[in-house]
Amino acid sequence: MSDTLRLVAAQLNFWVGDIEGNVEKIIAAAVRARDELRADLIAFPELALLGYPPDDLLLRSGLPPAVEAGLERIRRETNGIHVVVGHPEYDEEGIYNAAAIFRDGQLVRRYRKRLLPNYGVFDEKRHFLAGRSACVFDLKGVPVGLCICEDIWGTRPADESRDQGARLMININASPFAIGKSKQRADVLRARATETRLPILYVNMVGGQDDLLFDGDSHAVRADGSVSFRAPTFEEDLYLVEFGDGELRGPVHEPSPPEAVVYRGLVQSVRDYVNRNGFPGALIGLSGGIDSALVAAIAADALGADRVWGVSLPSRYTLDMSNDDARIEAEALGIRYSVLPIEPTVLSLGQTLAETFRGRAIDITEENMQSRARGVLLMALSNKFGHVVLTTGNKSEMAVGYATLYGDMCGGFAPIKDVYKTLVFQLARYRNSISPVIPERVLTRPPSAELRPDQKDSDSLPPYEVLDPILEAYVEDSRSISEIVAAGFEEAIVKRVAGLVRRSEYKRRQAPPGPKVTRCAFGRERRYPITAVYGDL
Amino acid sequence: MSDTLRLVAAQLNFWVGDIEGNVEKIIAAAVRARDELRADLIAFPELALLGYPPDDLLLRSGLPPAVEAGLERIRRETNGIHVVVGHPEYDEEGIYNAAAIFRDGQLVRRYRKRLLPNYGVFDEKRHFLAGRSACVFDLKGVPVGLCICEDIWGTRPADESRDQGARLMININASPFAIGKSKQRADVLRARATETRLPILYVNMVGGQDDLLFDGDSHAVRADGSVSFRAPTFEEDLYLVEFGDGELRGPVHEPSPPEAVVYRGLVQSVRDYVNRNGFPGALIGLSGGIDSALVAAIAADALGADRVWGVSLPSRYTLDMSNDDARIEAEALGIRYSVLPIEPTVLSLGQTLAETFRGRAIDITEENMQSRARGVLLMALSNKFGHVVLTTGNKSEMAVGYATLYGDMCGGFAPIKDVYKTLVFQLARYRNSISPVIPERVLTRPPSAELRPDQKDSDSLPPYEVLDPILEAYVEDSRSISEIVAAGFEEAIVKRVAGLVRRSEYKRRQAPPGPKVTRCAFGRERRYPITAVYGDL
Repeated sequence: MSDTLRLVAAQLNFWVGDIEGNVEKIIAAAVRARDELRADLIAFPELALLGYPPDDLLLRSGLPPAVEAGLERIRRETNGIHVVVGHPEYDEEGIYNAAAIFRDGQLVRRYRKRLLPNYGVFDEKRHFLAGRSACVFDLKGVPVGLCICEDIWGTRPADESRDQGARLMININASPFAIGKSKQRADVLRARATETRLPILYVNMVGGQDDLLFDGDSHAVRADGSVSFRAPTFEEDLYLVEFGDGELRGPVHEPSPPEAVVYRGLVQSVRDYVNRNGFPGALIGLSGGIDSALVAAIAADALGADRVWGVSLPSRYTLDMSNDDARIEAEALGIRYSVLPIEPTVLSLGQTLAETFRGRAIDITEENMQSRARGVLLMALSNKFGHVVLTTGNKSEMAVGYATLYGDMCGGFAPIKDVYKTLVFQLARYRNSISPVIPERVLTRPPSAELRPDQKDSDSLPPYEVLDPILEAYVEDSRSISEIVAAGFEEAIVKRVAGLVRRSEYKRRQAPPGPKVTRCAFGRERRYPITAVYGDL
Repeated sequence: MSDTLRLVAAQLNFWVGDIEGNVEKIIAAAVRARDELRADLIAFPELALLGYPPDDLLLRSGLPPAVEAGLERIRRETNGIHVVVGHPEYDEEGIYNAAAIFRDGQLVRRYRKRLLPNYGVFDEKRHFLAGRSACVFDLKGVPVGLCICEDIWGTRPADESRDQGARLMININASPFAIGKSKQRADVLRARATETRLPILYVNMVGGQDDLLFDGDSHAVRADGSVSFRAPTFEEDLYLVEFGDGELRGPVHEPSPPEAVVYRGLVQSVRDYVNRNGFPGALIGLSGGIDSALVAAIAADALGADRVWGVSLPSRYTLDMSNDDARIEAEALGIRYSVLPIEPTVLSLGQTLAETFRGRAIDITEENMQSRARGVLLMALSNKFGHVVLTTGNKSEMAVGYATLYGDMCGGFAPIKDVYKTLVFQLARYRNSISPVIPERVLTRPPSAELRPDQKDSDSLPPYEVLDPILEAYVEDSRSISEIVAAGFEEAIVKRVAGLVRRSEYKRRQAPPGPKVTRCAFGRERRYPITAVYGDL
């Protein structure tokens, strides 16, 4: 009967700026959906034609004709199936975040996104004008409503689609991953479905793009809000969802445990950053500590062991145990392993500075020099062999500035910069549960930067079990010091942590990008002045 | 007669986040305006209470009560004068970019900015909701219209103020400096004045704030659009402007030549960055080239010679002439001067890497190691003595990536990062016209990075007279390659330059902040993905 529709959610990975490549992918997917899945419609994610987020690429004068040419190819080269594709639309007034619906060489309809997010990682009002009308189109006699991403987080676009007769909604997205985001999306879809009494199909992209990570998480809800389709996260594929008897139905994959999802996301982000930027492989400074062990595992899982190069850079303060653990990790992962001692470089630096430093006490300077000697050596390998350096700093360190600028912060990509140290331990245990690659004692001995004898992170910082919740309140929730103290933390510690976070903004400003995984990531999302007086904010 | 008003434009420097300090300054200025200048009104810049741009500080939960307390103090502690002060206003719906008018302990009126810029360096829609009404208030029987910054760039706020009876407009601003901006502002004010037949008083802040620079440039136009008051740029002071017979009148300072304005702006930006962040002084790597010579002069003019430390870091490739010129510059400026040879460090690095590099040709790696050895030494001085390192890279270099990440890009602030090389020469000549501090041959010999024998910038780059206009078209105007070629540049060169700009985004992302002086600065203003395919955009 005509009331049965075969819809395909194209949970695919699109490259920012690569209109030609994206068009190829869109056409190939449409053909496969039509021929193999006998689909009536395929829905691609928001801005699939251009990738997301395109940022100021949208302002380049060469872009409008390139977009037009790409859409033309899709129009001409797909037929026998409705193709819903997100793209920027240029007119005299400005740019819209739009979606075109093509069928048999015709443009069936065009929709312009109405609710433009301009908070958190989003800057859509910088580039786009808001659309003003709902979009309901006919698919084999069934009126289908279409909206884009943020539209479904408000009520009007779906309400108006229902009022115009829609019997189901399709919502196309470029929605970045964060821990807890999947539940938020499901809550929003449930609310919209129960309000409108319409089933909703949610289609999202996958892939890593600089500071963002797209997890897919495409799913559908029935008119009562219950889930009737769920794609696996971070899995690039076409998913068939049927509409019949007023409801959507598709495969329902059980959600993975949170650690598994985050780990997989970090792997995706490294793979996409390294491959899209054309690096032959990745370099990692292996200290014998847990952060670098985790990053090496992520890199090996992302790129294959043969493209990963672990480098141990020992100093006089490096314990034998650390050197052993670095070597054991590299062997367990099967990655290339080198040892480059920093002692000669550190001695030369010290001799050069001896006269200028005469009479001054040893301080953080000498620690930073060790870290920077490592940075220079890693970058030399990077320059000579072409591999990108992955930094190994975690969010707890980046927050309080427990990292050396131009030292361990050297690198092109920072896979765990938005992962708190407490989560680093969980992810390491998760990875070891698949196959043991990180020695047990790396997970259990106290973390140390090994920049002076017997140094421990806990000499300078509160225990991570205390630090991380304070950071979450201060950084992610923008809570004031007094509010955090009222929540049960020691005032002296909260003040100290807040001061460190404030004073480290200049370091974070020069940090490499890395994927957002928390509710509020440094970098693209948390935008603070470097120069600022805070009083008691 | 009551139709004569004495208005004060408070062209002052406010600190981001420092509500208490800003309130002190506002109250002191109001008292001085009343007592010394017998003013009826004093107008402070946009968001004077909090500084500009506050960015996500606006989202901190401690901010609303701090703003409220600051406004309360101004209300209570000023009297006998109308005080117009910009501040964020919080209500249940969100935050407004507002201005309060206080008089004798009363809140006379509150205005909410209506046009919120969300382009270029501005993100006001990220934080603020738009106001919906004009504001006309009575000052000694004269109806005065008030609006904020962007409001005057559109027509409605001024038109509605006139329709509500305003006889003059006051426009308070936090408008960043750029070359040519002063003319743009004058054009806008002339257009608004002639449309509305109202004189307009434009009040702007001064000061450097991370990537932005506020030049003041407060001025007034008559109803016919002609200038009837102009404050000197970058000069912190109170300026009395009288309103009588339907027109505004004040001192008219002649504009300075463009080089003088830019130079003064760079001095301001260094002074504010260094002082506000509490550094005892600044360190500069003096190469004997023109960029570092200019930065040293700016720093000495900003901080005083006794707070500036020039460091020569020669290698085997450094010409004697370069060493001489570095020393001569330091002597001419009267700054501290040290020489730290990098040869021992470079040799140690080379020995450590010898085995790993065996069989590989000498390439850019060895050049970068020299630059990074310098970076590590400068940062060691910075760590030990507390001085901030100023980087010396110019916009032409930053655009094409002719700079070493973690090498000469090491530093906290980049004074000339938005100054094209051709303008560097002009600024150096301008500075020498005041007193000779840069040796003539530094201005005339071909620029070189001196990282290999007989190296010249022109080996790797087109001449700066060709490069800079191409960059302006590609970077500032977002022109496509074919458009730039059509404007008369050689296709091979344009393609090469465009490719270099694209591939250097990852370096710029890790660069220190520095003041915007062109129409489109890297960093806060030009926001591009690192990972992107460009096709022919």
